[in-house]
Amino acid sequence: MLSQVMLARRAMQLSTVPAHPPTGDRISLDSGYASPEILPDLRAAASSALDGHRSEALQYGPPFGLPRLREWIASFVRDDGVDVEPDGVLIVNGAKNGLELVCRTMLDEGDAVVVTAPTYFTALPILRSFEVELIEVAQDGEGLDVRALQTVLRRRVRDGKAPPKFVYDVPDFHNPTGITMSRRRREDLVAAAESAGVAIVEDTPYRWLRYGGTSEPSLRELDSSENVIALGTFSKLLAPGLRIGWVLGPQSLLDRMARLKGDGGSCPLTQRIIYEFVKDGALEAHLRRARSLYTSHRDAMVSALSRELPEAAFTVPLGGYYLWLRFPDGVDGSELAAAAYERGVSIIGGDPFYASAGLRPNPHVRLAFSKSTPREIDEGVRLLAGAYRSIR
Amino acid sequence: MLSQVMLARRAMQLSTVPAHPPTGDRISLDSGYASPEILPDLRAAASSALDGHRSEALQYGPPFGLPRLREWIASFVRDDGVDVEPDGVLIVNGAKNGLELVCRTMLDEGDAVVVTAPTYFTALPILRSFEVELIEVAQDGEGLDVRALQTVLRRRVRDGKAPPKFVYDVPDFHNPTGITMSRRRREDLVAAAESAGVAIVEDTPYRWLRYGGTSEPSLRELDSSENVIALGTFSKLLAPGLRIGWVLGPQSLLDRMARLKGDGGSCPLTQRIIYEFVKDGALEAHLRRARSLYTSHRDAMVSALSRELPEAAFTVPLGGYYLWLRFPDGVDGSELAAAAYERGVSIIGGDPFYASAGLRPNPHVRLAFSKSTPREIDEGVRLLAGAYRSIR
Repeated sequence: MLSQVMLARRAMQLSTVPAHPPTGDRISLDSGYASPEILPDLRAAASSALDGHRSEALQYGPPFGLPRLREWIASFVRDDGVDVEPDGVLIVNGAKNGLELVCRTMLDEGDAVVVTAPTYFTALPILRSFEVELIEVAQDGEGLDVRALQTVLRRRVRDGKAPPKFVYDVPDFHNPTGITMSRRRREDLVAAAESAGVAIVEDTPYRWLRYGGTSEPSLRELDSSENVIALGTFSKLLAPGLRIGWVLGPQSLLDRMARLKGDGGSCPLTQRIIYEFVKDGALEAHLRRARSLYTSHRDAMVSALSRELPEAAFTVPLGGYYLWLRFPDGVDGSELAAAAYERGVSIIGGDPFYASAGLRPNPHVRLAFSKSTPREIDEGVRLLAGAYRSIR
Repeated sequence: MLSQVMLARRAMQLSTVPAHPPTGDRISLDSGYASPEILPDLRAAASSALDGHRSEALQYGPPFGLPRLREWIASFVRDDGVDVEPDGVLIVNGAKNGLELVCRTMLDEGDAVVVTAPTYFTALPILRSFEVELIEVAQDGEGLDVRALQTVLRRRVRDGKAPPKFVYDVPDFHNPTGITMSRRRREDLVAAAESAGVAIVEDTPYRWLRYGGTSEPSLRELDSSENVIALGTFSKLLAPGLRIGWVLGPQSLLDRMARLKGDGGSCPLTQRIIYEFVKDGALEAHLRRARSLYTSHRDAMVSALSRELPEAAFTVPLGGYYLWLRFPDGVDGSELAAAAYERGVSIIGGDPFYASAGLRPNPHVRLAFSKSTPREIDEGVRLLAGAYRSIR
């Protein structure tokens, strides 16, 4: 037998990825799945990949990713204002893998990393597995509170502590809050991080899923000193199951990350399928459909909440997948999620989105409007309202 | 800018994956690519995956892998004598990713790991990146020298050192030597490792590519105490570009490994494509073709070497992809590889296959007969012979 002592000790170093109980017949308002209606038809792209490009798709691929796809991604983010060449694009197995490689390259035990409170809950176990100190900084309606960040940074200098290695944030349609950082706040964050010698890891999964208003420049666009590492993914652009994303960053960092890709490079077959789909502009039509569909999902949720649950405060997000509800003080989001689960709707309480304990009891829950239909969303919110009444 | 001090320090912790210079128009006898002739036609499987199983293939997949594929793998290895249930199969991004996850779960800085001398060269940077002590144990014609291993283990006990965490080996058609471990030696290794409290990581990429003789039981089959962790892959069964492999091991270990899969689970699309291909028995026909083709490749290489390079000693491998040549003492394999490269054939000198410095100069080279055609192999060996004469 493997030493149980060893296994037990290792287990203490690992953090648990929040487990979703099986949804069963319940209405799922919990996770970031795509709407089944919007999953793209990739059959023609797969046939092209496996026919005309069989060797490229089925032999070992280059560690940085397929050249054609790197070129396409560079052009895609250039259209978004980011000055990047194909050499500055590293293809990874989705943004989570990108974050993990950033951590493996940049972090040592005992380092500090800044996250928003709340933050993307899957980033937390990845960061924790590197045994870093997580520093929470609050958000307001304009995004991460840069003054609060500066106070944290000054206090560390005063205490003789090294600056945090990076700030991790989702500035567009933040997960879970849906907040989009204002232009002014972005400029302040980029300037503050650079002057303090703190890198920024900008996670952009929802950036291209905007349902209203106008886009703000990405942090990476505002950065002129290679201090922002940007993570992107096809999970929300096309489909989560593709497990292909990208990292933009300084060449020296990407070189090190590529060497750490112990899996021998991301799957060239999936990369070629994606490239065959996007190369002639099919992504733009797909995104138009997705934006239109998810707008109707979001509107159904907003309207059902206004009708059924006036006690829940929220900001209407201009994009992304999520609504972040705040209930009156004293309500516990996890208790509410458990009661809702019993009544047939699956949601996530606010607790796992905080690096620290956060508020106790935590009066937040996150609702995802991506996967379920407007009719299911309507019914799900009705069930949630019943659950809320049952615990008040 | 990211701190250059930090980047430089991190770089020292990373090991270089051996870089292959571009082959260009050269004949490639260097790497473990599949023959282009044997790359399977996966178009129908991809269509089925993307049509009838679109949601499964394109939404997030389960961290352990698709249930159907885990069942198939369990049945495939049960046919090979291994007692395993689907729950005991963890799907990973190829065997390299499996090894990396084993390391992340089991190893701490300063631990020791046993490898054969020589060993699979891509395992070395993975192991080194965990900053472990690598202990080399020699091989003979029956595989890893278990007596030498026992001497090492006794010496560590005597010196008050902890036993190595595991022995890493490729017992079937070893990479690079082509040696297959004898039945007796397998039994001795399994017994010695168990009694010393040392796990075994058995890497089996070539096990199903046997061109003659009869199969020996796998180490995992001979193990009755969950001490052997087995790595398998579709890279050599079907195609390297699929990036799908598996790990068999104790449940507690697999649970921990699954939690460390920072990429959110291996690609469900590729998994479903593989399952659609193998479920009705297409793999067996594919393997018959592969065995027949690679037998002709191996025979072409053996025959060309016998004719052109009688100075090169080798054992004819009964399977796998490689021939391991030993030249007379004083010949340097890396110098020979460089001379061969100039003359138009790409091979790998023996040096990177050793954890230690190994022999200096190292009189070995590895030739891969998988990718190139018999005609190219014949010409490649002729060019290699010319290069050999040029440096003697």
